[in-house]
Amino acid sequence: MAKSFNVAVVGATGAVGVEMLKTLEKRNFPVKNLKLLASERSVGKTLKFKGEDVKVEKLTEDSFGGVDIALFSAGASRSRDFASHAVKAGAVVIDNSSAFRMQADVPLIVPEVNPEDVKWHKGIIANPNCTTIIMLVALKPLYDISPIKRIIVSTYQCASGAGAKAMEELRNETADYLAGRPVVPQVLPHPYAFNLFSHNTTIGPNGYCEEEMKMVNETRKIMHDDKILVCPTCVRVPCLRSHAEAITVEQERKVSVEEALAAFAKAPGLKIVNDAERNYFPMPVDSNEQYDVLVGRVRDDLSSPNGLAIFVCGDQLLKGAALNAVQVAELL
Amino acid sequence: MAKSFNVAVVGATGAVGVEMLKTLEKRNFPVKNLKLLASERSVGKTLKFKGEDVKVEKLTEDSFGGVDIALFSAGASRSRDFASHAVKAGAVVIDNSSAFRMQADVPLIVPEVNPEDVKWHKGIIANPNCTTIIMLVALKPLYDISPIKRIIVSTYQCASGAGAKAMEELRNETADYLAGRPVVPQVLPHPYAFNLFSHNTTIGPNGYCEEEMKMVNETRKIMHDDKILVCPTCVRVPCLRSHAEAITVEQERKVSVEEALAAFAKAPGLKIVNDAERNYFPMPVDSNEQYDVLVGRVRDDLSSPNGLAIFVCGDQLLKGAALNAVQVAELL
Repeated sequence: MAKSFNVAVVGATGAVGVEMLKTLEKRNFPVKNLKLLASERSVGKTLKFKGEDVKVEKLTEDSFGGVDIALFSAGASRSRDFASHAVKAGAVVIDNSSAFRMQADVPLIVPEVNPEDVKWHKGIIANPNCTTIIMLVALKPLYDISPIKRIIVSTYQCASGAGAKAMEELRNETADYLAGRPVVPQVLPHPYAFNLFSHNTTIGPNGYCEEEMKMVNETRKIMHDDKILVCPTCVRVPCLRSHAEAITVEQERKVSVEEALAAFAKAPGLKIVNDAERNYFPMPVDSNEQYDVLVGRVRDDLSSPNGLAIFVCGDQLLKGAALNAVQVAELL
Repeated sequence: MAKSFNVAVVGATGAVGVEMLKTLEKRNFPVKNLKLLASERSVGKTLKFKGEDVKVEKLTEDSFGGVDIALFSAGASRSRDFASHAVKAGAVVIDNSSAFRMQADVPLIVPEVNPEDVKWHKGIIANPNCTTIIMLVALKPLYDISPIKRIIVSTYQCASGAGAKAMEELRNETADYLAGRPVVPQVLPHPYAFNLFSHNTTIGPNGYCEEEMKMVNETRKIMHDDKILVCPTCVRVPCLRSHAEAITVEQERKVSVEEALAAFAKAPGLKIVNDAERNYFPMPVDSNEQYDVLVGRVRDDLSSPNGLAIFVCGDQLLKGAALNAVQVAELL
């Protein structure tokens, strides 16, 4: 008989938490008991799981008795405060926040890229940043042909990365704009309706924002290659739940477009969308609510003999967060 | 007494044509007589210029008698059919289409970059592609410090580049989406509401679309440097009238962030928007209806010793088209 697990979802009512429930159900993850945890103000709400109502309970230090797997998606400070209690209670924590990602004793895992790292966890496994996950699902098959030396990436990031409230704000602001009403941002720092802006995380002394430095540092950790150079520009665009990324890579040897496409075709978690004749390439409308990362616009980099350019699109809430976490749970 | 000119605007009722009229008026261009030309279906319409109604006339081969300057913005095939008639009638044509841009005997001019090329025109001067203009206004001051060897650019292009109907389609589709109605694209090939897609021009045999190859070829012609390598990715995002671009450049020698900012501060047509503390950088809402190209996010390229990364934003209808054309007319 297949083993089944007591699963807790921390931050169950958030944009990612809701998708975690759906993904556990859809992928038929062997859940014995499900515990939904959230902050005080969500207590009393119920969420559906396999047709049944599950009550949201308050997250406390004592919430984790009997829990085998705790999926955390309630922000870095909650993870820092509560993950150790879950581990002490015997659970394995799969944490979607940035709290532990760069800790040396915490594996950072994209199941299509470095599933083997799950073996050395000490109670906590970190889920990478959404833009990093989506990029690396596409770059791993290229790296396997020839090591990647340099990545230049520009992101087109959607609202969901900033949470359910940001998605709502984008919808509301856009309706206001179209009706000629003033647009008043409350969740995000800048107007979002028919606008775009540099990613709203703190800019560090080197001029890169936190989101960009995640792409730099997490890429190296996940790929086990500290020599990979990454130059990211992270931008929020007015889309709802898929990130897109324009990626230029330089590899040790030239990888041809044909080789790249052959590798993408065999790679897990990727779907090639590369119809030049119809000008049909990865788009958010096609990756929304999909598990696979879409990859296309595969072409030689006109500016480098060993370069390739690609364009990817992936659901931020699923592959960028909830799906990746559930896939990590499946590895366990 | 200052000289004044008989000016014709071809394609006067289009998105760019309307902005050309506004720009001529706002910059107080010395217009003696103004002739508005368009296709049959716009004949009879009137447009305001300096408080007066000007009737739109039908564009014919005989439209250009007495015209000194003809501003064309009615698409490449109209330009091919009618520009020679304007030149024969004694006018100087400033053409906003792609028809003549790469012809060896036609100068391609961004007034902030290569104004000297206006001298050798033989009747036709071409206005570059909008993405190229906006990029080069920012790159020229860097090039003047040290030659640029390589450019990697990802664009975030707005609806206006595809014309007034595309802007309308974006508004309508978005309203449909928000109201739960089906989204049916008619002008552009893909859904545009809360979506983005690879630029909708024909993909060539090398995998790059026409828009991208314009950035490659026009950059070299305008900068008079055939060795500049350019790797562009052109993407349409759901914004209305400003293009943004994430640009990574490699130069012959390292140019520091401070040097770059000092050069930007002195350069014509540029405005620095680079407030890391407030996370305030170039955004379409701030460049819409502005003459200046906004530049910011100036930082060292983490992946190259001689690299810099910047982010720019410019009004596609103005600096990307109408303003640049009127500035060329001013040079004359």
